[in-house]
Amino acid sequence: MRTSIATVSLSGSLTEKLTAAARAGFDGVEIFENDLLASPLPPEEIRARCADLGLRIDLYQPMRDIEAVPEKVHAGNLKRARHKFELMRRLGADTVLVCSSVSPLAVDDDALATAQLARLADLAQEFGIRVAYEALAWGRHVNTYDHAWRIVEAAGHPALGTCLDSFHILSRGSDPRGIADIPGDRIFFLQLADAPLPAMDVLQWSRHHRCFPGQGGLDVAGLLRHVLDAGYRGPLSLEVFNDVHRQADAGATAVDAHRSLLLLQEAVGAAELPPRVVPTGIAFAELLTADAEPVTALLAALGFARTARHRGKPVDLWEHGAARILVNTGADRRDGTRLAAIGLASPDPAGAARRAEALHAPVLPCRRAPEDAPLDAVAAPDGTELFFLADETSDPSRLPRWRGDFAALPDAPGPAGATRIDHLALTQPWHRYDAATLFHRSVLGLDARESIDLADPYGLRRSRAVASADGGVRIALTVGAAPADGTVHAAHIALATDDVVAAARALRAAGGRLLPVPDNYYDDLAARFAFAEGELETYHELGILYDRDAGGAFRHCYTETVGRVFFELVQRDPGHQGYGAVNAPVRLAAQHTGRLLR
Amino acid sequence: MRTSIATVSLSGSLTEKLTAAARAGFDGVEIFENDLLASPLPPEEIRARCADLGLRIDLYQPMRDIEAVPEKVHAGNLKRARHKFELMRRLGADTVLVCSSVSPLAVDDDALATAQLARLADLAQEFGIRVAYEALAWGRHVNTYDHAWRIVEAAGHPALGTCLDSFHILSRGSDPRGIADIPGDRIFFLQLADAPLPAMDVLQWSRHHRCFPGQGGLDVAGLLRHVLDAGYRGPLSLEVFNDVHRQADAGATAVDAHRSLLLLQEAVGAAELPPRVVPTGIAFAELLTADAEPVTALLAALGFARTARHRGKPVDLWEHGAARILVNTGADRRDGTRLAAIGLASPDPAGAARRAEALHAPVLPCRRAPEDAPLDAVAAPDGTELFFLADETSDPSRLPRWRGDFAALPDAPGPAGATRIDHLALTQPWHRYDAATLFHRSVLGLDARESIDLADPYGLRRSRAVASADGGVRIALTVGAAPADGTVHAAHIALATDDVVAAARALRAAGGRLLPVPDNYYDDLAARFAFAEGELETYHELGILYDRDAGGAFRHCYTETVGRVFFELVQRDPGHQGYGAVNAPVRLAAQHTGRLLR
Repeated sequence: MRTSIATVSLSGSLTEKLTAAARAGFDGVEIFENDLLASPLPPEEIRARCADLGLRIDLYQPMRDIEAVPEKVHAGNLKRARHKFELMRRLGADTVLVCSSVSPLAVDDDALATAQLARLADLAQEFGIRVAYEALAWGRHVNTYDHAWRIVEAAGHPALGTCLDSFHILSRGSDPRGIADIPGDRIFFLQLADAPLPAMDVLQWSRHHRCFPGQGGLDVAGLLRHVLDAGYRGPLSLEVFNDVHRQADAGATAVDAHRSLLLLQEAVGAAELPPRVVPTGIAFAELLTADAEPVTALLAALGFARTARHRGKPVDLWEHGAARILVNTGADRRDGTRLAAIGLASPDPAGAARRAEALHAPVLPCRRAPEDAPLDAVAAPDGTELFFLADETSDPSRLPRWRGDFAALPDAPGPAGATRIDHLALTQPWHRYDAATLFHRSVLGLDARESIDLADPYGLRRSRAVASADGGVRIALTVGAAPADGTVHAAHIALATDDVVAAARALRAAGGRLLPVPDNYYDDLAARFAFAEGELETYHELGILYDRDAGGAFRHCYTETVGRVFFELVQRDPGHQGYGAVNAPVRLAAQHTGRLLR
Repeated sequence: MRTSIATVSLSGSLTEKLTAAARAGFDGVEIFENDLLASPLPPEEIRARCADLGLRIDLYQPMRDIEAVPEKVHAGNLKRARHKFELMRRLGADTVLVCSSVSPLAVDDDALATAQLARLADLAQEFGIRVAYEALAWGRHVNTYDHAWRIVEAAGHPALGTCLDSFHILSRGSDPRGIADIPGDRIFFLQLADAPLPAMDVLQWSRHHRCFPGQGGLDVAGLLRHVLDAGYRGPLSLEVFNDVHRQADAGATAVDAHRSLLLLQEAVGAAELPPRVVPTGIAFAELLTADAEPVTALLAALGFARTARHRGKPVDLWEHGAARILVNTGADRRDGTRLAAIGLASPDPAGAARRAEALHAPVLPCRRAPEDAPLDAVAAPDGTELFFLADETSDPSRLPRWRGDFAALPDAPGPAGATRIDHLALTQPWHRYDAATLFHRSVLGLDARESIDLADPYGLRRSRAVASADGGVRIALTVGAAPADGTVHAAHIALATDDVVAAARALRAAGGRLLPVPDNYYDDLAARFAFAEGELETYHELGILYDRDAGGAFRHCYTETVGRVFFELVQRDPGHQGYGAVNAPVRLAAQHTGRLLR
C-alpha cells in the first residue's frame, strides 16, 4: 500500500520534513497548514519539491469548525474554503481534511451538518477536490467515526467522504468492527497513530505531574480551609511527585516549595505576609553587554536616543518616548548581550521589596556608590534582577529617584514619540517555569493566564502571560518543552507604538533590519480577515504579523536578534488582550532561518 | 503552622534533600522509604542530621497493602510492621502513613479493614506510634477520604487516625466540605499538592503522546483490518503529534515511522517481509576502548581469561564459561570504554540480516580482511552494532564460523566455569527509546515487556525489557526521562552464575571491587523475606541485592564502572523473570556516591 506521513510528525522546516520523509521511503505527505504558513517557499515550489522527491501531497489540513454552525458563520467558512481550494490547486493537493467542529457555536444538528458539508463539497468539486470529514475524539457533537459516517452517508455527495483516524477511534474505545460496513470508496483517507497505554489516569497524573500549591489548578486553599475548620493542627506537608523536580536542583525546589506554603497560609488567613504591592509599569529594561555597539545601533534605528549616563557605573540611559533602556557595558564576560534587569514602577518600593523578601526572593546586594539612591532589588527565579522604583503615585518626600543617579547628556534630544514598553518576554530555565509563575503571581501580584503551547520547528515551547489588571505590566514567561538542545532562546522587549507601519518604515530607513515573514502567511491572512486596499501588502513588505480578538487588533513585527535579545514593535488596539501567540510558530520558524529584511 | 515536605518532592541524595528543606525554612520532613533505603546513613544518624538541621521527622512511609487482606497475609504484614516500628523508633518518627490497599488480594470488606487496622494500631501504640490511614485515589476498594474516615471512625482506636491528601481528594472531584465533620484530632496528617488542570484528557493525550504503530498499546493493526475489509485502497498515513519527535532529528524519526508502516502491513498481510529470525543467544559482547588495561583487569578479576586474538585486528577474545567478551582496542578517540557491538547467535544469520535490512536497519560496511569470515551486521537505533552469527542449529556446511577469525593463544586456559551472559542493559539516546522498542520487537523478534519507571536520585529513568521467549536473549533498554543533564549513563553486562556469593568472593579475592549497598537496604530485606541463618549477612558483606517473584529468587551485585561499562553478577532461579528493577533505585543511588567495596 502507499505510505504517507503528516508533516507535523517530524521536526524541522517544511523542506527538512519533506526530505526526511522521502529518504525514509514514504510515497506521500499530509501537509499541515502551519508548516506551509511558516515556509518561505510558494505553493508551486513546494509542489515541485515534492515531485522531485517522489512525494504526492495526499492531504491538506487547513479547515476547522466548518459544519453545524450558524448560517452566517458558514458563509464565511465557504469564502475561506474557496481561498484554500485555490491554494490547494497551486499545491496539487486533491483531498482536504475537515475535522468535526469543536466550536462553542456548533449545534447538535446532523441535518444542518449534512447540508453545510454538502455545500462545501459542491464548492470543492468545482476545484476537483474531495472533502474527507473526520470525527475528532473531542468533537463538540460529532466525536465517533460512525456518527461522522452517518452524516457523510446522508449527504450522499460524490466529493464528500470520511477520514478515519486510529487514534480518534481507539482512544475512545469505539468498536472498530463497524468500519467494515462503510463502503471502501467512501473512506477517502486513513490516518494512523498509536499511543501509550494506559492513558494518563489519576495514578499517572499523581506520579508525574503534581506541583506545589499555587502552581497548578486545584483549589488547595479551599481544601485547607475545610481541614482547619475540622480542627486539624498538625503540619502542612507537601508531597509532590514531579518529573521536573526530580531533575532540578533540590535547593531551588525547596525554596519554591516553602514559598507555596507561605502563600497558602496567607490565603487561608493562617499567616500574615507584607501585603502585595502591584507594580504600575515598567520603568526600564536593562541590557548587559560587553560590546555595546550592535545593540545601541539597533536602539538608535528604533528611535532611541542616549539621554543620560550613570554617575558611577558604565551604564547609559536610552529613551524613546516613555520607553527606557539601560545599556550596561559592565559585563565581565563576553557571554553576549542579554536582558539582565527590569525596573518596576511601584507605589511602595520598600513594601514591594519586603513582600518579596518574606517570600524568599533573594535581596540583591547594593551595587551602588554611597551617593547613589538606595534601590530595592530582588532576584526573580530566572536570575533577572528586579528593581522596585518609585512611581508618580509614591510619596515624593520619602522616595529617592533613580533618575537622580544619571547625569543628563548635554546634547541629548528630549524624549520623543509615543513609544513605551508593551511587554517583556523572558525565557525561563527549563526547570523554573512553574516557579516563575508562582513568583510573579505571589511576589509581584500579577495575574497569570493559562499556559499555552507554541510549536517551534525544533520542539514545543510553552508560554504563559502574567500581567497587572490594567496592563501596565505585561510579561510573557516562555520555556522550551525540555532541556533538549541547550539552545539559549532569546528574550525580547516589545515596544508599543501608535503606528507600527510608520515605526517599521522608520526603523528600516535608519538601517535597522526586520524579520521577513513568508508569503504563505499573508495568503492565509487574506482568507481569515478583511483588510483595506493595500493594507496587507504593506504588512507583507514590512513583515508585520496580525491578530484580532473581541477587543481589537494586534499588529507586530520583529527586529534582528543581538546576542540573546531582540525587539518587537507592537500596535495594540486598546482592548486587545493577546501577545500574538497565534503568530508565534511563523515567527519562530522565520527566526530559525536567520534571514532578515533589508 | 508548621511546614513539612516529603523527601520525594526534592532531587538528590537524602542528605541533599534534608539540607535543601532546612535551608528553605521547612520545620519537618516526611521520609520516603526508598530515600532511607538508598542512604548510607544509619537511622540514628539520619535522626541526628535532622535534629542538627532543625527538622522534625513528621512522617515515615514504609507500608502498603496492609488492610482488608486475607488473615495470613495480614499476619505477615504485622511482622513487617513491627520491624518498621523498630526502625521508626531509631529514626525518632512517631507517625506512620498507611495508604489504602491497591493489592488484588484486598477485599471489599470494611469490617475486615477496620479490624486489621485496629490490630496494627495496637502494635503501633506499643511503640508510641500513630497510624495515619489515607485513601489513595486509585485504592482498590477505599479511594475517597470519607470512606477512609468511616473505617477509622469505626475502629475507634486512639492510635489510628486519618491522613488527608489534597491531590487524592481534589483529583477525584470529591466534595471537601465533608472534611469539616471529621474531628480535627483524628486528622493525624495533611499532605498538600496541586496539579495542572485539565488532567490529561484525550485531547492532551492526542497532542503530545501519539506514537508510531507498534510503539504504543493501541490495536492499530486490528483497526486497519476493518478498514481494509471495508474496501479502502488509499494510502496509510501517519499523523503523530509527539513532544519527543518534535525535537528529534527528522531523518531518524522518518525512518522509524516508515518501519512502523512496513510492520503494520506485514501484520495485516498486505506486505511480505523476510521472516523474523529470533536470535537464540548472545554469542559475545564487544567492548571498544583505547586503553584496555582497566577493563581487562576487571575481566580477569571476574574470572575471564584471554583465549584468542583476532588474526587481523586489535581484538582479543576473553572467555569465562560460555560468556565471551571481545576487547577491541581499535578505538580511534579516547572517549572511554563502551559497549559497541553484540554478537547474536542465530539459526539463520543471513535471513536475520535480510529482515533487518528490509526494515531499514543500516547494513554495516564489512570491517574484515579478505580472509575473514563474512559476517552479517546491522546497526541498532542507538548505534550498537549487531552481528548475526551462526549458532549450533545453523547448517554448518553453509555458514562461516566467526571463531575462525581468531587464533587461539598457545597458553590460554580452556574456558571454565558455568558463567554466561544473562542480559545486557543498553542506555538509549533520549529520543530513541520508542524506536529501540519497535526495532528489537520487529527486527529481532523479541517480546517487549511494559515500560517501567526507575527512580534515580537525579531524575526518573525508564526501562523496558525485550527478550526471546526462552530467555536466551535478554536486553534491558533504559533511558533518562529527558535529556536534562547530559549525563552519559553506562551500559552493563550481566553475567549469569550458579553461585553469586562464590562469584562475588572470587572477584574480591582477585582484586575486583563491588558496589556497596546501604545497611538500611538489608534492614528492609529482613522485614520482607525470610532468610537462612547468616544468609543476609553474607549478602550485606558482598553488596548482593535480592528479589523474588513467583518463579523464584534473583540475587545480583555490581562491579565498579570502567568508562561507560560495568558488570553485574546474577544468580537467577530458573523461573525468575525479572531484572532486579525493584532494586534499581538503591543501585543507582549507590553508583552516584562513587564508593566501592574493597
